[in-house]
Amino acid sequence: MAEQLAVGVDLGGTNIVTALVTKDGRIAEMISRRTEPHRGAELVITEMAAVVNELINSVSLDDIVGLGVGTPGPLRQREGLIHHSANLPGWKNVPIQKWLQEKTGLPVQFENDANAAAYAEFWVGAGKGVSGLVTLTLGTGVGAGVIIDGEILRGHFENAAEIGHTIVELDGRPCSCGQKGCFEQYAAPGNIAKHAAEEIRNGAKSSLGGILKAQGGFDSEAVAEAAQAGDALANNVWNDACRYIALGCVNIQHTINPEMLVLAGGMSKSGGFLLDRVRQHFASQTWKIFDDAPQLVLSELGSNAGVIGAAGLAWKAYQSGAVRLNIAAS
Amino acid sequence: MAEQLAVGVDLGGTNIVTALVTKDGRIAEMISRRTEPHRGAELVITEMAAVVNELINSVSLDDIVGLGVGTPGPLRQREGLIHHSANLPGWKNVPIQKWLQEKTGLPVQFENDANAAAYAEFWVGAGKGVSGLVTLTLGTGVGAGVIIDGEILRGHFENAAEIGHTIVELDGRPCSCGQKGCFEQYAAPGNIAKHAAEEIRNGAKSSLGGILKAQGGFDSEAVAEAAQAGDALANNVWNDACRYIALGCVNIQHTINPEMLVLAGGMSKSGGFLLDRVRQHFASQTWKIFDDAPQLVLSELGSNAGVIGAAGLAWKAYQSGAVRLNIAAS
Repeated sequence: MAEQLAVGVDLGGTNIVTALVTKDGRIAEMISRRTEPHRGAELVITEMAAVVNELINSVSLDDIVGLGVGTPGPLRQREGLIHHSANLPGWKNVPIQKWLQEKTGLPVQFENDANAAAYAEFWVGAGKGVSGLVTLTLGTGVGAGVIIDGEILRGHFENAAEIGHTIVELDGRPCSCGQKGCFEQYAAPGNIAKHAAEEIRNGAKSSLGGILKAQGGFDSEAVAEAAQAGDALANNVWNDACRYIALGCVNIQHTINPEMLVLAGGMSKSGGFLLDRVRQHFASQTWKIFDDAPQLVLSELGSNAGVIGAAGLAWKAYQSGAVRLNIAAS
Repeated sequence: MAEQLAVGVDLGGTNIVTALVTKDGRIAEMISRRTEPHRGAELVITEMAAVVNELINSVSLDDIVGLGVGTPGPLRQREGLIHHSANLPGWKNVPIQKWLQEKTGLPVQFENDANAAAYAEFWVGAGKGVSGLVTLTLGTGVGAGVIIDGEILRGHFENAAEIGHTIVELDGRPCSCGQKGCFEQYAAPGNIAKHAAEEIRNGAKSSLGGILKAQGGFDSEAVAEAAQAGDALANNVWNDACRYIALGCVNIQHTINPEMLVLAGGMSKSGGFLLDRVRQHFASQTWKIFDDAPQLVLSELGSNAGVIGAAGLAWKAYQSGAVRLNIAAS
């Protein structure tokens, strides 16, 4: 028998990433394809299965322990359905687990993408060896995943860890979710860049003014670079975001009380410039009466966390015997 | 063999409540004594054990399945220690579990009082039959307990569910914990009454002005009564508190995603006047894109939740076999 492998699939709004992953979380082979969600769920999932079959073609099926797929939510996980998703327009109650199982012949684990990424950091990433952790994925919005004693926190309605939509300002900035004052309105890099651009349009001076004029916009990395180069507006905007990220970390500390908090997503590419600021604000905001502060760290797996975590969940099911039971029962 | 019973002890800053509790959570007998924490931990715990022994005196020891004690935290639960407590001045790393075990001969379960109260509502109170719940105990501060799939969420540092100290206003009102903008500064009845009194001292007109002058202060029940009688200031203060309580509920929904949220503590005595307002603000603050709102309900066990929950944890340990193993090992 050759080396055993699990298949991981990370279904995003723009790309589908598929990989063969070893028992210790190493990517042995990976394929990335553009997602075309508007072509309909069944077609996309059929193509997804074709990529999986292509990947495992060169391997004996006996060496594949299972398949894990991470998808945008909200899900109806117990029923194996993608409920709907802003990133997959038109998809509604898609039985992705059943379809993938039929089209690949593999046992399929199915998870929210943010949870899969959190599991990856816990399994073989920044949190290897901790009892549990919470990830904050600072991207278009703020995703999150919560691992407690090695298990994903799913919640009664299978929609836990939507920390991007906890409210940090009563009657604050309107959010696309319909609420006001959501954490992600203050902490997500997309909103940081939008906020800086608004201030410049309202007359604030900034070295980012030229980029705004020339390109019509910029991202949070541009804000970080301008801030590091001494631009006052950029520095203020970046700093405010880090204060809110720290507030989110304090709230996670006092609710979940995890051993570790992992900062991930596009914004974490700014590395120490993000981490140092967040740590500094966290230290000034949290209490000193009891020493229960989590370690604050950066993601180690970056954009591969989703696909590694999805495969990790297939490994977990295989090792716990859940997969073999499923097969025996079918 | 007569009916089996567990002993529950609820150690508070002002009273120690001790009760015999049946398998279905009914209090068979209860004794309440004043706490005198300044006399020292060992003396208080010796007296606590004497009350326990008095209670079980009339019962065959074979019928007592164990003892559970709920105490103010933070605790070092794995080590059986009360770490320290604002309500128990001078107590530091008190080995309450070991001492009670020695002084009563019973196996002792040991839990944070807010967690014990949450467990009681889950076991035989408002949440009987749910998969899990979160309690918000609106008292001097805001305590909380989180039950997920029947288990208490303790956290890596054994200090989870300190939801009263999640931050709801960046750089907001200073809290006794050292942080700024803590939830309990906006939602705890003690702070509500303080806030109303401040406004009156600053010149606001209110029917509470007379009580303030005559008695030097009032509690949140007085605010609720004045609000219900049409006092505008009292109504504003009460309403603001309910908006923040609703915000806290939204944040719990998006973090833990429980089936139920239980409002408990002194403020819940205002019943429907609290619940209706909180439900109304919750409905207007939370999202409508996914139907994952928890049931919002009032505590059913009131001030007995702590002692019932402590006994319930003794029952749980007994039924899981953990107690018998402990005895065999000692």
